[in-house]
Amino acid sequence: MQRIAFEDVQQQLASALRRLGFAAERAETCARLFAETTCDGVYTHGINRFPRYVATIRNGSVVVDAEPRRVAGFGALERWDGRRGPGNLNALAMMARALTLSRAHGIGCVALGNTNHWMRGGTYGWQATEAGFVGICWTNTMPNLPPWGGVERIIGNNPLVIAVPRPAGPVVLDMAMSQFSYGALESYRQRGEMLPVDGGFDAEGNLTRDPAAIEKSWRPLPVGYWKGSGLSIVLDMIAAMMSLGRATHQLSHDPVFECGISQMFLAMNPEAFGPEPKLAEIADGIVASLHHSEPAREGKRVRYPGEETLRIRAENRKLGLPVEPAVWAEILAM
Amino acid sequence: MQRIAFEDVQQQLASALRRLGFAAERAETCARLFAETTCDGVYTHGINRFPRYVATIRNGSVVVDAEPRRVAGFGALERWDGRRGPGNLNALAMMARALTLSRAHGIGCVALGNTNHWMRGGTYGWQATEAGFVGICWTNTMPNLPPWGGVERIIGNNPLVIAVPRPAGPVVLDMAMSQFSYGALESYRQRGEMLPVDGGFDAEGNLTRDPAAIEKSWRPLPVGYWKGSGLSIVLDMIAAMMSLGRATHQLSHDPVFECGISQMFLAMNPEAFGPEPKLAEIADGIVASLHHSEPAREGKRVRYPGEETLRIRAENRKLGLPVEPAVWAEILAM
Repeated sequence: MQRIAFEDVQQQLASALRRLGFAAERAETCARLFAETTCDGVYTHGINRFPRYVATIRNGSVVVDAEPRRVAGFGALERWDGRRGPGNLNALAMMARALTLSRAHGIGCVALGNTNHWMRGGTYGWQATEAGFVGICWTNTMPNLPPWGGVERIIGNNPLVIAVPRPAGPVVLDMAMSQFSYGALESYRQRGEMLPVDGGFDAEGNLTRDPAAIEKSWRPLPVGYWKGSGLSIVLDMIAAMMSLGRATHQLSHDPVFECGISQMFLAMNPEAFGPEPKLAEIADGIVASLHHSEPAREGKRVRYPGEETLRIRAENRKLGLPVEPAVWAEILAM
Repeated sequence: MQRIAFEDVQQQLASALRRLGFAAERAETCARLFAETTCDGVYTHGINRFPRYVATIRNGSVVVDAEPRRVAGFGALERWDGRRGPGNLNALAMMARALTLSRAHGIGCVALGNTNHWMRGGTYGWQATEAGFVGICWTNTMPNLPPWGGVERIIGNNPLVIAVPRPAGPVVLDMAMSQFSYGALESYRQRGEMLPVDGGFDAEGNLTRDPAAIEKSWRPLPVGYWKGSGLSIVLDMIAAMMSLGRATHQLSHDPVFECGISQMFLAMNPEAFGPEPKLAEIADGIVASLHHSEPAREGKRVRYPGEETLRIRAENRKLGLPVEPAVWAEILAM
């Protein structure tokens, strides 16, 4: 593992993107999102994901110069066509649009069809909270999870992001509907570790903590068994219906051809009715109740979603972004 | 278990409610909601819950004649004060208001503070879909669940409802953030059964399927461990902040004094941009993909959330509502 300064990473990625046909400003923004993701400690979806992102550009899944287009609007609700553009740039533009709508209407909602993988979903939650707004967004994905009661991968892990502004540091939940991602299973297996809790079924249909057995059966567990399975289904349904886009079952099983997906972006203005000093107090009260409660392990503290992000961000800004040498060499050669 | 006709149940409950001070029309509506809940097969929150509901009226937690009042509004977003009125009547009125707002703005949102237990959350999801709208609502609750990493019950199981309209039968997810409710744990214990999956911790802090051990430790599991714990926290935060109401940690631990809670109601109009024949096709396509996929157990079928409701409803309408003799005797004596 080596450390590279944030600006150097961004510059290198931007230059690779320009060579792939991105206009200068879009290349800068896209590169910044990747660097920020690694900087925030979401290593699976930052620099390490860049080679796969480039693969989806090279195979035509992503159209580098396509920008989203509004196809319908009524008050606080809009439908946009992502035109198979870069998923992260599309998502950034759509949360910005939801924020604009919520400034005008208190709440705003954009349904986006025909888009691509947004990389780290939390990015758009942070985006909303930086404007002082509540942000809620979700995406459907390729079929990568069996529904409860089934053995075939026909539902998506459909990440859901719910972000709440707070002056002392926003609370940002970014959760996929599988208990462990395939990336997490792989990483446990490589370390020779068992999962901390059941993560899926083995080939005999028994619940197991063995990551290799789950990779083999392709039957990871939805979060909360039947509950997360149901949540995945309704999130897919709303995204596809509101955007008139594709549902999970219509998407490719191949990650580099996972394209034309559907997403939802909601923003709410907690100060729509005027400045509200009580908001920070309410949020801080909830955080304090967590921090002051008795931890399960001595010396630990109960945390809120996203609590570690600002600390990790500051550390990685200072020390440089951690990058895998092999991945970095691949990027330098692009 | 005896069976009583829907109308007789409704009439009996309505007359008990009138004696408790409900105006005639509100008594009818409230009684109908309880009867419908049992009719739909949600036995924990229908007739069986009525005695506890009455207890919260008698102890002053619920103010029978209080109606919600709008305290602020901006475009598609409103804040209402529930004035400690009956939680189910308040929630019904607030989803109706969210539907009205979404007719005018495409999407509508009501934050409701100072309200009471809404009984069955799914009721308000069905309400939205019957109007042809997507409905999303959630509530905070008394502290009844330890957060991930903690041992004290300081977060709520905060039920979340997401409902999608579909001509052939809506898809309605109604999920609490605990894997098993205390009611479910009790019922497994009484039947002498183990839970089908881990449901909490025993006194030694080990995951267990033994319902009695979890009842003793007061440490049921959040859905998906850390994930449902995080989801519970952000739902509480949004409901309390947007309504300027109380957060879970500020509520009583005693169910009959769980009052003054906070809720969110969102409605979205999938036909805001005009009639859209493709909607049913998209929803049906997702349902078909579930039904046609390979089940984990031969002879079973993968189901969508709420799939059994219409069948159970028809059966209970025909045969009469199943009621516990002891509960029914208690209601007759009210």
